[in-house]
Amino acid sequence: MLERYGHGGDLRTAEEAYGKPETGFLDFSSNMNPLGPPPVVRQILSEGWRDIVQYPDPAVRELRSKLSAKYNIPMESILVGNGAAELIDLTARVLKPQVTGLARPSFSEYEEAVHKSGGGIYNIPLHAQHQFVLQQQDVEAAQAAVDLLFLGHPNNPSGKLIPRDVLAMLLQGDHPCVLDEAFMDFVPNEQEHSLLQHAAESQRLVVLRSMTKFYSIPGIRLGFMVAHPDRIKLAQQLQVQWSVNYLAQRIGTAVLEDEAFEISSRQWLQEEKLWLIQQLEQLGLDVVHGEVNFLLFSFPVSMGVTVKQAQQHMGQQGILIRDASLFAGLNERYCRVAVRLREDNCRLIAGLHTMLSDLTQNRG
Amino acid sequence: MLERYGHGGDLRTAEEAYGKPETGFLDFSSNMNPLGPPPVVRQILSEGWRDIVQYPDPAVRELRSKLSAKYNIPMESILVGNGAAELIDLTARVLKPQVTGLARPSFSEYEEAVHKSGGGIYNIPLHAQHQFVLQQQDVEAAQAAVDLLFLGHPNNPSGKLIPRDVLAMLLQGDHPCVLDEAFMDFVPNEQEHSLLQHAAESQRLVVLRSMTKFYSIPGIRLGFMVAHPDRIKLAQQLQVQWSVNYLAQRIGTAVLEDEAFEISSRQWLQEEKLWLIQQLEQLGLDVVHGEVNFLLFSFPVSMGVTVKQAQQHMGQQGILIRDASLFAGLNERYCRVAVRLREDNCRLIAGLHTMLSDLTQNRG
Repeated sequence: MLERYGHGGDLRTAEEAYGKPETGFLDFSSNMNPLGPPPVVRQILSEGWRDIVQYPDPAVRELRSKLSAKYNIPMESILVGNGAAELIDLTARVLKPQVTGLARPSFSEYEEAVHKSGGGIYNIPLHAQHQFVLQQQDVEAAQAAVDLLFLGHPNNPSGKLIPRDVLAMLLQGDHPCVLDEAFMDFVPNEQEHSLLQHAAESQRLVVLRSMTKFYSIPGIRLGFMVAHPDRIKLAQQLQVQWSVNYLAQRIGTAVLEDEAFEISSRQWLQEEKLWLIQQLEQLGLDVVHGEVNFLLFSFPVSMGVTVKQAQQHMGQQGILIRDASLFAGLNERYCRVAVRLREDNCRLIAGLHTMLSDLTQNRG
Repeated sequence: MLERYGHGGDLRTAEEAYGKPETGFLDFSSNMNPLGPPPVVRQILSEGWRDIVQYPDPAVRELRSKLSAKYNIPMESILVGNGAAELIDLTARVLKPQVTGLARPSFSEYEEAVHKSGGGIYNIPLHAQHQFVLQQQDVEAAQAAVDLLFLGHPNNPSGKLIPRDVLAMLLQGDHPCVLDEAFMDFVPNEQEHSLLQHAAESQRLVVLRSMTKFYSIPGIRLGFMVAHPDRIKLAQQLQVQWSVNYLAQRIGTAVLEDEAFEISSRQWLQEEKLWLIQQLEQLGLDVVHGEVNFLLFSFPVSMGVTVKQAQQHMGQQGILIRDASLFAGLNERYCRVAVRLREDNCRLIAGLHTMLSDLTQNRG
């Protein structure tokens, strides 16, 4: 199983599983922007190598100041973390929820963080017939049973935003709510959907962002939390000293200035995603039309193909796809793939075609 | 105050305090090996920049395997962390001590981690008349009062090793004991002093190591913990996913192969430290003869100089020194400086000379 450590993008496990070198895989199992990293990353690493003899700024002042200006949020409402994973963990440790409402399916780190901090889970079902969009009545039911809601906006693996009526309800409610906006940068008109500015002043809302997906820098770890300054202080007290490394801080500060990268990434994605959806549907797959740079789809029952079979076959072809049946709430027919550049996407489609021919032929 | 965030090496705060650009300071306040980083670091950052589009290996397999071979320790006994700071925090969270015995003075992160995990502190005094070496009777008294000992070996800021009789007592005792060997690589005949191999099998002993000081890579964060595999598993469950970034893993793996760097670093230090001790003593300062790449000294009462005055004066000269009075157990006359290359050390001595002339003249 490729997700031995709970996630996609684990090339070392792929190497062990399929007997090819790490570099020989086309990775659709992790969701990175294929236009990244922005050119300034190369420059910083080549020219700035000697600077890692310095400790990182413990208060991450430059990057927080840049984020403050870009999103029009006070610096005191921003905490930078060693990847969004650290911020998810810190959030659960600060809020210490007894019962947390989680949408099913959603990103597995929420559940792990909640368990680590000693709390229980309330399942909020997402339904295939609604394309996995969160429904108002399901959130209402949850609010009566939980003391925290922890939701993806847009959600992973569906790629779906929380609808406006549900957001309005969350903002009016009494319950603390954490929105993970890790993939929000990919959404067209991001600022109309993001709740970053609300979170900066709210007593109840916390918003988490990742910078590793959009800028393709998961190797260096970078994310940030926006919340009321009092809550930021509590999280910062629990955070480990120098948690955000020097290169992450420096790169994060620099990439925020590259507006051209931002614009072209969003433009590319809008076109390419439509094309890939069309191609997947032509193969007979049921595709969820998400808003971001990955797509959730399922093999129709009639095909008789499981994602484990598919992952194994594709892995041997050198193509990594995500077994989405590992997300609570999805069955063995669900799969997730990143949207990559056209040439790679063509190889994915050809690989899926071969796999489907082989597996459905063997059946008959 | 230069140590606004609790530590040395904060060039950004120095910039704010002394009105010079970050790059204009000669930093004796953080303890990096001035021979580093090893040349392979430059190569990895220049050539490997595109690799940060990959997630780090969640299990840190290559680096753990290298550490296992170098120190002759099973891989299951090794956990790699986002700097020793993360490992100190994880250790306290796993062991959850009620009362922890800390030597005074010692590294402030121990106390912070213990407080975060809800425990109290028992002070083990280190005495100036014993050159701050841990005394057997003081450890015996502590063992009756605490459920954990958390000790630096060698200790920071004294640079002194725990003596053999005390180590033997710790190994025989019933109490869990954490030894922070962050600076052990600098000690001649390291393997005669380090308890790494004991820790790998022990039910009671945990050893922490930093890789950032010896290899001069504090900017990317890297350290490791050695303990019984059961304890490693507990710590790993609390650790955040992908906590150790890709470049830290890659660089850590590569530098371990550079034996020439290791040998020349130790040789350089032995000579240079003796020279620097001599120079400091010629200025009339009371120097603790430590084993590592930094030196603790004090201004004799007769000089009437406080370290705060000294730090301010030196900062304006563009030289950063560590205010060691911030370590619990040291008074306002204590200062710590790193051992750097000869040219820099000459500037330190000249700067101290000027400072002492100015401050003692103003007095008279």
